[in-house]
Amino acid sequence: MINMREVYLENQANTAIDERVLKEMLPYLREKYGNAQSINSLGAVSKDAIEKARKQVADLVSAKENEIYFTSCGSESNNLAVKGLAAAYMQKGKHIIVSAIEHFSVLYAARRLGQEGFEVTYLPVDKYGFVSPDDVKKAIRDDTILVSVQHANPEIGTIQPIEEISGVCREKKVLLHTDAICTCGTIPVDVNKLGVDLLSLSGSQFYGPKGAAALYIKRNVRIIPQIDGGVQENGRRAGTENVPAIVGLGCAAELAKNELDAGYKKMIRLRDRLITELPKKIEYIYLNGPTEKRLPNNINFSCEFIEGEGIFLLLDGKGIYVSSGSACANKALKMSHVLTAIKVDTAVGQGSILMTLSKHITDEDIDYVLAEFPPIVKKLRDMSPLYDYFQKTGKRHVAGPGTDYEHEHEHEAEEDQ
Amino acid sequence: MINMREVYLENQANTAIDERVLKEMLPYLREKYGNAQSINSLGAVSKDAIEKARKQVADLVSAKENEIYFTSCGSESNNLAVKGLAAAYMQKGKHIIVSAIEHFSVLYAARRLGQEGFEVTYLPVDKYGFVSPDDVKKAIRDDTILVSVQHANPEIGTIQPIEEISGVCREKKVLLHTDAICTCGTIPVDVNKLGVDLLSLSGSQFYGPKGAAALYIKRNVRIIPQIDGGVQENGRRAGTENVPAIVGLGCAAELAKNELDAGYKKMIRLRDRLITELPKKIEYIYLNGPTEKRLPNNINFSCEFIEGEGIFLLLDGKGIYVSSGSACANKALKMSHVLTAIKVDTAVGQGSILMTLSKHITDEDIDYVLAEFPPIVKKLRDMSPLYDYFQKTGKRHVAGPGTDYEHEHEHEAEEDQ
Repeated sequence: MINMREVYLENQANTAIDERVLKEMLPYLREKYGNAQSINSLGAVSKDAIEKARKQVADLVSAKENEIYFTSCGSESNNLAVKGLAAAYMQKGKHIIVSAIEHFSVLYAARRLGQEGFEVTYLPVDKYGFVSPDDVKKAIRDDTILVSVQHANPEIGTIQPIEEISGVCREKKVLLHTDAICTCGTIPVDVNKLGVDLLSLSGSQFYGPKGAAALYIKRNVRIIPQIDGGVQENGRRAGTENVPAIVGLGCAAELAKNELDAGYKKMIRLRDRLITELPKKIEYIYLNGPTEKRLPNNINFSCEFIEGEGIFLLLDGKGIYVSSGSACANKALKMSHVLTAIKVDTAVGQGSILMTLSKHITDEDIDYVLAEFPPIVKKLRDMSPLYDYFQKTGKRHVAGPGTDYEHEHEHEAEEDQ
Repeated sequence: MINMREVYLENQANTAIDERVLKEMLPYLREKYGNAQSINSLGAVSKDAIEKARKQVADLVSAKENEIYFTSCGSESNNLAVKGLAAAYMQKGKHIIVSAIEHFSVLYAARRLGQEGFEVTYLPVDKYGFVSPDDVKKAIRDDTILVSVQHANPEIGTIQPIEEISGVCREKKVLLHTDAICTCGTIPVDVNKLGVDLLSLSGSQFYGPKGAAALYIKRNVRIIPQIDGGVQENGRRAGTENVPAIVGLGCAAELAKNELDAGYKKMIRLRDRLITELPKKIEYIYLNGPTEKRLPNNINFSCEFIEGEGIFLLLDGKGIYVSSGSACANKALKMSHVLTAIKVDTAVGQGSILMTLSKHITDEDIDYVLAEFPPIVKKLRDMSPLYDYFQKTGKRHVAGPGTDYEHEHEHEAEEDQ
C-alpha cells in the first residue's frame, strides 16, 4: 500500500530514537571511539562524555551524579538491583517482597533468589493493579531486606503509590527498589520525593537508543556487582562502556526533562480520546487498569469473543503497531501475568490489546485508529463461534477442542470502570 | 598542532568502527527501531536482523547459529561463562581452574565464586605467559567443573595452546571456556579445532561497535542466566536486544572472516618491525611476551629507568595513543597482574608500554613511531634519577620516598629474547 499511515503504538516496548539524540551519538560511533578507561586523549573524550551523560540522567530524576550507574538495558538494571542488593544484605536476612505484576526481569530475578535460599513474597494487587501500602507493611518481616514495586505497570498503566510504600519501608528500615522504566522520561520522577533507595530506568523508553540504561543507587546503599571485572562504574558494573549509547541516554534524559510537560499533557488528552471513544464504537470491550493514576500513554482493552492475536495482525496490516502485554512475553499467546493478577477473565483476557502512545502522537493518528479498529473487531467477531453462540443464546461460552465447558461470565462490573 | 599524524595503538582496548559496519547499523538506529520481541512488522525486521547477525558470528568461529548468544560486552560474556556454568554444574563440584593472567572479568568472576563457596585454582604461567597443559592436567580434580584459559593475552600477546588444553579437559571430562576476545577477528578462531565448550568474543575488538558481544555455548552445555527476565536469547540472556549493535557485530564478523588473512599478515610484518627496530634505537628495553605464538598486533616493551606513564603522556602529545596493560586496570599505576605473573621485575615493569596494531596500520605509521619513541625515552631518562645513578655507578637502584633500598637487577637473560 502506498502512503499508508503508520501509527506505532508499542512505545512500552521501545520508542523510536529522537533524531537529536542520534546526532549527539554519531561522533562517538565514528571518530571519538576511545575506550573511556584509556588514559590517552581519545579515552578522555569518551570519559568526559560519559560523565556528562551521568549528570544529565541524574538531573532527570533529581539524583546526584555519583548515584547513577550505567548498565546495558532495563532488565540488567533490575537484575542488578534485586540480586545485587540481596547478595549485599543476605547476612541481615533472606526475605524479599515484590509485587505480582512486576516486569519479568524483577519477577524472575526474585525467583532465582528463591532457588538460592531466599524467601520471596509476591504481593497481590487490586483489580486496577494497585499495590496496597498496607499489604507491604504486613508483609515486611524482621528478615526482609528488600521491597521491589514498580513505579508504574507498562501493560495496564497503573501508577503505584510509591511515596506511601517508601514511607512504610523507611519506617520498617527496609530498602525499596522501584522499576521506573516506563515512567522515567514520561512523567516526572524524583527519587527524593518517591523516597526510593534504588530506581531503574532505560533510555530506549524515552527516545534514547537501545543499549544504555541506568540504576540509581542511593548513597550508602551497598550492592554486589553482577558483572565483575574492570573498574568501570566505580567497580559496580564492569565492561567497556557503550559510550555512544550512554551519550544517547544522557541526551534523551535532558530532552525528556525539558519537554516532559508538553509531551505528557498531549498524551493524556489523546489517550483519553481512545479510552472514551473506542467503547462507543465497539461493544463488549473492557478497559484494563485504572482511569486515574494511569500512565499518560497507556491504553489496554480486552475485546470479548476474539483473540488479541487476530486484532494485532489485522491492525499490523493497516500500519497500526500494537501489542498484547509485555514485549518479552507476548510470543506465548496465553494471558499475561498482569491480567491474571488483576483477575481478568481468561476468555476475555485473550482478546486484550495494549496500545502505548509516544510524544509524536497526533489527533490524526488517533482518528486513524478509531476508524480502523472497530471494523477489524467486527470482522473477527463475524468469524467467531463464541460471538455466534452469544448472539444466538445471550450466553458466554468458552469453547475449545474437546471441551464442552460452559460458563456464565460476569463482566458487567468491569464495564463500570 | 596542524596535520599531526595520529597513530592509534590501543586496539586491544577497542578498535575504531569500520565505516561499512556503521552503514549497516544506521537504519536500525533510525527507522528500523522495532523491539525484536514484538510480533508486529517492525519487530520482525529487528528479529530477522538479529538472526542474520547470529549466523555471521557463528560463521566467524565455525559454530552453529543456535550456539551463539548475544551479550552487551566481553566482560558480560566472560561473567556469564564462568558464573553461569558454575551455577549450572555446582551439584557436580565446586572447583574451577583459571590462569593467573586472565582478563579481570574472568579473574574477578572466579574470585566472586570463591567468596560463594567455590574453590579456585589459579594456574601459573611461564616467563612468556604460556599455560602448561600439564599444569592443567595436574590441577583437575574430581570436583572440577570448569577450566577457563584465554585464547591469547591482550597485554603480552601470548597465544595459549588451547587445542592441547582442550584435549586434557576432554579426557578428564571437564568443561573448557576460552576468552577469545582479543583473537576473534584478528586470527583464525574455530571452536571445533580449539575443542572448547564456551568461547567469548566482542565486536568492539574487531571494528564493530561497542555494546555487542557474544558467548558461544556448545550444544548440550547447560548454563544459568545471569540476567533473568524475558525470553530473549533463548532464555539465556534477558533484556531488550541492542539491535543496531548486534547488526554491527554481525557485519564486523563477516568482514573479519573475509579480510582476516590480509589483515593479520600485514600486522605481523609491522609488529615485527617495531619489535626488532625499537631495541636497536633504545638501550635497556625488553620485550614482554613471546616472539613466537604471539598476537599479530601485540607489542609490549618495558623501558628501564622510567615510568610508562611518562612515556604514554609524551607519546599522546605526538598523537601516538598507547597504553600500559589492560585498559580496565591502567588507572592504577602499579605493575599489571600479567607482568607480575611472568615475573617481570617491578622496577622495569613500571616502564612498560603496550602497543596494539589495527588492520589500518601502515609502514608510515610505524616509521612515525620509530622516529618519535626513542627521543621521548631519552628525554625521560635524562630526567630520571635512576638512570643518572645507573650511568654513574653501573648499578640498578630502586629509589622511593623514604627508602634506601638498593638492588642489583638481572635483565640480561631477558634481553636475549
